[in-house]
Amino acid sequence: MTERPAIGFIGLGIMGLPMASNLLAGGYRVCGLNRSPARTALLVERGAATAASAAELAAVSDVVITMLPDTPDVETVVFGSGGVAAGIRPGSAFVDMSTIDPAMSRGIAARLRGAGVAVLDAPVSGGEKGAIEGTLSIMVGGDEAAFARVAPIFAVLGKNITHIGDAGAGQIAKACNQLVAAVTLEAVAEALELASASGVDPHKVRSALLGGFAQSRILEVHGQRMLDAAYTPGFKARLHKKDLDIVIAAEQAAGLHLPAAELLHERMGMLAARLPEADHSALRTLL
Amino acid sequence: MTERPAIGFIGLGIMGLPMASNLLAGGYRVCGLNRSPARTALLVERGAATAASAAELAAVSDVVITMLPDTPDVETVVFGSGGVAAGIRPGSAFVDMSTIDPAMSRGIAARLRGAGVAVLDAPVSGGEKGAIEGTLSIMVGGDEAAFARVAPIFAVLGKNITHIGDAGAGQIAKACNQLVAAVTLEAVAEALELASASGVDPHKVRSALLGGFAQSRILEVHGQRMLDAAYTPGFKARLHKKDLDIVIAAEQAAGLHLPAAELLHERMGMLAARLPEADHSALRTLL
Repeated sequence: MTERPAIGFIGLGIMGLPMASNLLAGGYRVCGLNRSPARTALLVERGAATAASAAELAAVSDVVITMLPDTPDVETVVFGSGGVAAGIRPGSAFVDMSTIDPAMSRGIAARLRGAGVAVLDAPVSGGEKGAIEGTLSIMVGGDEAAFARVAPIFAVLGKNITHIGDAGAGQIAKACNQLVAAVTLEAVAEALELASASGVDPHKVRSALLGGFAQSRILEVHGQRMLDAAYTPGFKARLHKKDLDIVIAAEQAAGLHLPAAELLHERMGMLAARLPEADHSALRTLL
Repeated sequence: MTERPAIGFIGLGIMGLPMASNLLAGGYRVCGLNRSPARTALLVERGAATAASAAELAAVSDVVITMLPDTPDVETVVFGSGGVAAGIRPGSAFVDMSTIDPAMSRGIAARLRGAGVAVLDAPVSGGEKGAIEGTLSIMVGGDEAAFARVAPIFAVLGKNITHIGDAGAGQIAKACNQLVAAVTLEAVAEALELASASGVDPHKVRSALLGGFAQSRILEVHGQRMLDAAYTPGFKARLHKKDLDIVIAAEQAAGLHLPAAELLHERMGMLAARLPEADHSALRTLL
């Protein structure tokens, strides 16, 4: 049996900390790093090492994983001073699990592959609950050999793991996911609002619709949230707005006009301005 | 055991003929009537009686069911010369299973109740396949006693049978269903188009999304139709457009502004003008 790869994990937020903890629990050696050191300390308590910079972390890791809020964060951590690119070794692998602009993922792949590094983009869905329980959906872009090499690590973190295509394809799949989720949330919100405003019990409408072609996981889960006005996240409106910024960037890069995506970009933007920390199902409150 | 009620069934189209046939097969006496007599003849071959007019049919029926294309058709059949209202007996029941404007359903209920008739609006979803197999979803508006009385008949026709509320509530639930279906179709179409136009395999994106919060029956069924460009109906674009006309009428009656419903009313209208007989999933061809 070959020794398990040493993992460097950068970004120990609401998602990254439970993911890195699951890797420790799964028997991997993990070196963790976070902008605010208090989060790093939590991982160190669980048995992780740490490093003074992303470059130093990369220098002692076989696989470097990033889980960061947005595109500029990933760019800085990889290419900034003392960043991953300054320390990462030829023959190692870099896996960005953040949700970022696919164009940036392709750029990172091009530059790090040139340095002999295997690169994957591997954004997730399933939220904090999925991160804690190790049941994330993982959408992966990059070459087949890199995917096969990192697959055992993904298996610790998630359940539905799909190799979508080459560099950036994971991010495109995630963008598609966030597009469908946003538009479906609006559909459910409008239907429940139409029922209520017409004097009809929206609970019964939700139940009836779950039995037919209007069924969706969002009608089931977020439809109930809307009925209960239970808008504690869940998934924050401002984060879904950020993901829809990525959708619109991808739409424009592809030369498309996607009217429902544009409508929801606008409406999620309104919600993020009004209730940034509310669950995205609070779209109903705009109606 | 009390004798089963005699059923009058008006409207023997793509939905009505198999529904009336199932009632015959279920042991009910059925008197059928259709605008074009060739369809009536098909039901008579299977053991039904017929009548010279809707009024005469109503006069010999305990329960009168209508299954007609649109609001004006129901208005004419009920209140026109020789219509249901001219023949229906006090103590009988009138059940409109067409998808029509909820305001018309409420108007019919008010007028026929005044004549001592129990009234239900009971639109369905599930299409021709559901009609043939007796697996329709049925959304019912009207009072509890009328619902209880007609429930055994509904049980022959469908599977998910929900009493939503008073007169018109079945139509509101159906409008909500058609709203959610249209908006979800657009979401799936845009996501698959974004994947394709970005050089990513949309089959893999569909599979990945089915495992998470973007899951829906429409992603599963109509997403596959879109990937195969299999736009033979199914459910015709011009009929979904008609149903979205009802959604917009209900929206306006409720004093709401529902932006995704309005967007899809516009887009389904474009599709119905271009490819009226295509399956509604052909929304993707507009992108």
